[in-house]
Amino acid sequence: MAAPVLTPRAVDFPRWYQEVVAKAELAENGPVRGTMVIRPYGYAIWELLQAELDRRIKAIGAVNAYFPLFIPESYLRREAEHVEGFSPELAVVTHGGGKELEEPVVVRPTSETIINASFARWIQSHRDLPLLINQWANVVRWELRPRLFLRTTEFLWQEGHTAHATEPDAHELALRVLREVYDATMAEIMAIPVLTGRKTERERFAGATTTWTCEGMMGDGKALQMATSHELGQNFSRAFDITFADESGSLVHAWQTSWGASTRLMGALIMAHGDDGGLRLPPALAPVQVVVVVARADQGVGEAAAALVDELRAAGVRAEVDDRTDTSFGRRVVDWELKGVPVRVEIGPRDLAAGQVTVVRRDTGDKQAVPQAAAAAGAIERLDLVQQALLAEAISRRSAATVEVATIEDAVAAAQTGFARLPAALLLDGGERRCNEAGVSVRCLQAPDGDLPAAGDELDGLVAVVARAY
Amino acid sequence: MAAPVLTPRAVDFPRWYQEVVAKAELAENGPVRGTMVIRPYGYAIWELLQAELDRRIKAIGAVNAYFPLFIPESYLRREAEHVEGFSPELAVVTHGGGKELEEPVVVRPTSETIINASFARWIQSHRDLPLLINQWANVVRWELRPRLFLRTTEFLWQEGHTAHATEPDAHELALRVLREVYDATMAEIMAIPVLTGRKTERERFAGATTTWTCEGMMGDGKALQMATSHELGQNFSRAFDITFADESGSLVHAWQTSWGASTRLMGALIMAHGDDGGLRLPPALAPVQVVVVVARADQGVGEAAAALVDELRAAGVRAEVDDRTDTSFGRRVVDWELKGVPVRVEIGPRDLAAGQVTVVRRDTGDKQAVPQAAAAAGAIERLDLVQQALLAEAISRRSAATVEVATIEDAVAAAQTGFARLPAALLLDGGERRCNEAGVSVRCLQAPDGDLPAAGDELDGLVAVVARAY
Repeated sequence: MAAPVLTPRAVDFPRWYQEVVAKAELAENGPVRGTMVIRPYGYAIWELLQAELDRRIKAIGAVNAYFPLFIPESYLRREAEHVEGFSPELAVVTHGGGKELEEPVVVRPTSETIINASFARWIQSHRDLPLLINQWANVVRWELRPRLFLRTTEFLWQEGHTAHATEPDAHELALRVLREVYDATMAEIMAIPVLTGRKTERERFAGATTTWTCEGMMGDGKALQMATSHELGQNFSRAFDITFADESGSLVHAWQTSWGASTRLMGALIMAHGDDGGLRLPPALAPVQVVVVVARADQGVGEAAAALVDELRAAGVRAEVDDRTDTSFGRRVVDWELKGVPVRVEIGPRDLAAGQVTVVRRDTGDKQAVPQAAAAAGAIERLDLVQQALLAEAISRRSAATVEVATIEDAVAAAQTGFARLPAALLLDGGERRCNEAGVSVRCLQAPDGDLPAAGDELDGLVAVVARAY
Repeated sequence: MAAPVLTPRAVDFPRWYQEVVAKAELAENGPVRGTMVIRPYGYAIWELLQAELDRRIKAIGAVNAYFPLFIPESYLRREAEHVEGFSPELAVVTHGGGKELEEPVVVRPTSETIINASFARWIQSHRDLPLLINQWANVVRWELRPRLFLRTTEFLWQEGHTAHATEPDAHELALRVLREVYDATMAEIMAIPVLTGRKTERERFAGATTTWTCEGMMGDGKALQMATSHELGQNFSRAFDITFADESGSLVHAWQTSWGASTRLMGALIMAHGDDGGLRLPPALAPVQVVVVVARADQGVGEAAAALVDELRAAGVRAEVDDRTDTSFGRRVVDWELKGVPVRVEIGPRDLAAGQVTVVRRDTGDKQAVPQAAAAAGAIERLDLVQQALLAEAISRRSAATVEVATIEDAVAAAQTGFARLPAALLLDGGERRCNEAGVSVRCLQAPDGDLPAAGDELDGLVAVVARAY
């Protein structure tokens, strides 16, 4: 038996992750510590995910715009919690155009401050509200313990920023984004089930009144925060003087939200679905959905493979032929499995002679002979099945690794292998701190039935989900 | 007569430009000098243009990837001309994560150096070539005299970087990009005719052996460099040690190209087509292609407008209804003209009673009554006409403002109002310097028939196009 292509997950999950990122050619380290090169295969996945998020962001009525990378240091200081939260992570430009700058500028760690400076100019009347803006951009947060996709000094993301006439309007928008943009993309496209809930005060975004979150479970039972949606109250509108004349003509400070999801989602995709053979991509995000592998290039095999790829492409499938017959068949199969291509069609001279092809599912390894004439239909049918099966499998795994507990100590113990649910009131009187000291954190607060709780800080009657986290 | 909405172009073209950018809500200045906020309407145009460029970039076989914003200062120094060219424009990060950095990092002014560090790892064999990579990113070049879209400290662009086994392969790719990506997008989508040609040694990119360019003529007769495609020879492959084993097994340095187009194209779009009423957008890039303006909201007018918008959208047209009848009809019309919407359909109660609507072309102002049942077809037909007419008009204007001259002095004189063509040999012996001292520059070198000349530095038998430039 050949040596395994990757360190098995059970042996060393972080090492397995690193190896998948490298061997599937997703990303590599940049020369400046903590920076990342996203390689073409990784970027192609990101582009597909971006398009799905962008479509849903526009569907809720937001429009895209672009704001500067450089923010005057003084802007950051206007909102007290915000500057305190981000100061330790800032990159600072002190020289520009060959001269020392009069006021240093920071490279945006997030764009609340600079976007709200524009909002203050754009918003005058209640007729200008709601204002829903989204930006696709790079941001920088100096990272001491970088890990590709998960924690990088520079990352790519979208950040939405909105302003509303009333607090309920802002609340409603924050939750709409959580559900219709993030939760929907994660479940339907990434095939990752997420818990949605409220962050505790300790885990809240710097400057928010309430932070809502989507938390996924990774293959090692740890949690990954996949996106957050913040209610900012009037914190930034007061700091940046964003006021509007209401219908009676009085000046009122706007109510705001902000929300973001980043290239971190690539890490989620790898860790939620990957197995010891490599990536397992949900078809909706696979740059190559079906690869047609020519086993040996003779007796019309190449022609049959090309015809099948044409047929698949005509049906809207992202299909590729692999006719690199100077590389061994086995090695090519290992490579396509590493890259997580959902469906593989193998064609060799013997198959063709029998009027059939072999269709293989990446998720289960299930391998079946299919009549040549039904090959395209068979591959397409399997794409749907793989998309559904990956989600179902992730849901089952999460259920199996989630336990109900009644004490902080039991929560910490259960969090070594998955999620623990406990009465949120136990977090009081140092309960949350004891969790943190034991290396686990409160991922979110939910109503006992899994629904979202009210905004604010109330813990009574809620359930806290506790886990180790990335 | 109402005061004109904009300073007329003939009175003060730069002021007209500033006013269009502001009043059409395309962009505004950021707080850090030279930075820019691209507002939603401007960004929507950019997104359409990006999609067109991206499609053509992928069609030539390039794939997208992403490289870090931060480059170690030492990387820039590896290619001597490159660092000399960019040093005066660099933004330098000296502090990160609360500490002074051991080695300062520069914010990328362009990514040749950091991308080639990856290429050195990715390229081993002739089988790895050609390698065609594109990146969509923000770059920073400290700008002392900023102008929105045209010269900004931070701008958005795409930059392509390729590596090839031979010099002819690199040459061919550089020209393919020039023609099939840039020239094609500019003519077919932006409706801007461009001159393609070679830059003189003096105007060449820092580190290139040959720079190819697309030069457009703006409404004031000045030139705008709209995109460039560079042959880099082996300059960067030697500096970054990018070698491959050729078929005989010898190690050879790769031959390279790089090429880019930026948000500067937004400036071209404004200045090539705009008139004293504002923008005139080519339909291919108009976020709103047809606006249906409700003159007065009674007697079924709103319903008729909504039905027409539905019909247009079903036909794939980007259509919007304007039923803000609390704002005067005239003011709304001025606003849609400012925003350059190519076709406007006006519907009022009197029109409806007569079974017709009024269809107005933004480019010519041509206004016609059209039977209500034919309104959608009439609007769609006009979109095609506007797209063609804007290109034809730009071609005529350029012809009328281009003259053949026989001396440097005549070239400088002619360049006050347009383009001058003169024998390139006149640039020798200080001819080009005399042009520059008189405030004009050599935009490109062409064969006498307008074709591209050979790569290199040869001037004999070529025509030089001289103009004032942005």
